[in-house]
Amino acid sequence: MALDRLIDKIVEMQNPTVAGLDPKLDYVPSFIKEKCFNEHGKTLEGAAAALLEFNKALIDALCDIVPAIKPQAAYYEMYGWQGVKTLAETIKYAQSKGMYVMTDGKRNDIGATMTAYATAHLGTTDLDGEAVDAFGADALTVNGYLGTDGIKPLLKICSEKDKGIFVLAKTSNPSSGELQDLKLENGKTVYEQMGEMCENWGKEDMGKYGYSGVGAVVGATYPEMLKELRAKLPHTFFLVPGYGAQGGGAEDAKFAFDKNGIGAVVNSSRGIMCAWTKQEGKTEADFAEAARVEALRMRDDLRSVIGEMKK
Amino acid sequence: MALDRLIDKIVEMQNPTVAGLDPKLDYVPSFIKEKCFNEHGKTLEGAAAALLEFNKALIDALCDIVPAIKPQAAYYEMYGWQGVKTLAETIKYAQSKGMYVMTDGKRNDIGATMTAYATAHLGTTDLDGEAVDAFGADALTVNGYLGTDGIKPLLKICSEKDKGIFVLAKTSNPSSGELQDLKLENGKTVYEQMGEMCENWGKEDMGKYGYSGVGAVVGATYPEMLKELRAKLPHTFFLVPGYGAQGGGAEDAKFAFDKNGIGAVVNSSRGIMCAWTKQEGKTEADFAEAARVEALRMRDDLRSVIGEMKK
Repeated sequence: MALDRLIDKIVEMQNPTVAGLDPKLDYVPSFIKEKCFNEHGKTLEGAAAALLEFNKALIDALCDIVPAIKPQAAYYEMYGWQGVKTLAETIKYAQSKGMYVMTDGKRNDIGATMTAYATAHLGTTDLDGEAVDAFGADALTVNGYLGTDGIKPLLKICSEKDKGIFVLAKTSNPSSGELQDLKLENGKTVYEQMGEMCENWGKEDMGKYGYSGVGAVVGATYPEMLKELRAKLPHTFFLVPGYGAQGGGAEDAKFAFDKNGIGAVVNSSRGIMCAWTKQEGKTEADFAEAARVEALRMRDDLRSVIGEMKK
Repeated sequence: MALDRLIDKIVEMQNPTVAGLDPKLDYVPSFIKEKCFNEHGKTLEGAAAALLEFNKALIDALCDIVPAIKPQAAYYEMYGWQGVKTLAETIKYAQSKGMYVMTDGKRNDIGATMTAYATAHLGTTDLDGEAVDAFGADALTVNGYLGTDGIKPLLKICSEKDKGIFVLAKTSNPSSGELQDLKLENGKTVYEQMGEMCENWGKEDMGKYGYSGVGAVVGATYPEMLKELRAKLPHTFFLVPGYGAQGGGAEDAKFAFDKNGIGAVVNSSRGIMCAWTKQEGKTEADFAEAARVEALRMRDDLRSVIGEMKK
């Protein structure tokens, strides 16, 4: 229950990293693109095939050292339904290699519509009596602006299917403060209020590590707020974007962790996907090996500030 | 520019209605489901084929009297990439019949990722030099919780492609107030603050009716707030959910309109899709005709409180 399946993998690999798979076509090595465009033409089918091949090679290179992937839905939708098919196939492939899959969709809606999103991404779709997985990820990022009506349908499916959610609290971008940092009359900031709502939503589904099935997204680019929220939200596991390309480092991300070295999973997308561009002597043919080198470096970087992740 | 293409259609048809196409399989008449399941098996392909046939019949029945459709992305994602293919085909079909298409996706993210969503739903995807439409809707609903970084990429594509967005301000659901109604230290509520951000984001792209390309979602279920926001946001066009099945009526929705009878488009989903269940002597075979009867009733209901929609 809760996020235990994710935390188990993190402890087992002693690595609190999630690899963001945000495969813009620009990031895909040209030899893969050429092969796929030759086969399918310069079409959405061709692009989707190239993304899938890229993702599979990255998953193969990472699956024994990185516990989770986070595909960002936007980069698949950009390539039409064909790209969305690649999203579904990427999720299945990563799970077949033992990885935990967190779909980054930041979905949000109410009632029956949120049930539809929850069913799509985490649950099982009913086809007049036949039950099938539409996307079947292990966790989904969501936006809590609509309040409890938008979260309850997720909690039901998470508890039935042993899945998790991550609610946006304090995002990593420069303008996140325009709304999130505003002070409410009750003395709290908007992001704090959202964080407390996460604690509250999660309390019915508490896991063995003391963290619930409702996590929060808190950016590494705001270390002070990360520290504050870690103290105020003891049962809320964090998904931390902003490491690497966005400017956050291990020294910033460390505030997301508790005294047992758990409490968060840190994302890197471009840093891992495009690692070959930053490594001496590497060409695009080495993208998968370079991704592994970078993932190991990031793991050791995080370990150096967190220490051992204890059961 | 701005939302003029939508408002032109509303004025031309004297109808400020958008038909929500949220096709759960439960809403699809059994004769359509049976045919499609016979052809494709009880599979996601079969479900997706059924949704498409249902949508096309509704579009045929509505396209000369209703200016716009609003497909809700969740109900397509629930049927996997196959359902998402039906979303793409529904958008193209409705546009070929002259309808304005507002994809209800409530998407949100930052920077490059938001550019990917904007490209996916409103823009043109670049395939190493070939430009193709991924989904190609006319407008998209979005969530502004991440601030300006999450909206700017949309504004660029909206201005280049003559498209629009609708940002969630005050949603129609019972728990929307948990965050949205909280008072900020500056004296405004969160939803008011979001509304002002919409006014601000829209000011570079003002249309001939005095409304910008950045609309706001404001529920009919909170008429007092609708009235307040109409007064405070003179350049922000409203998408008003909550009419019909959610309990809002024309007397509530009327506050969304200005003295010229424009300023908003009112959504009905189940009320139109499932109209046959509420009409005397109708069976599921009459679903399309019943949808048209309900759309005409709703148009006349709204006209009776708004009066003429003036150019």
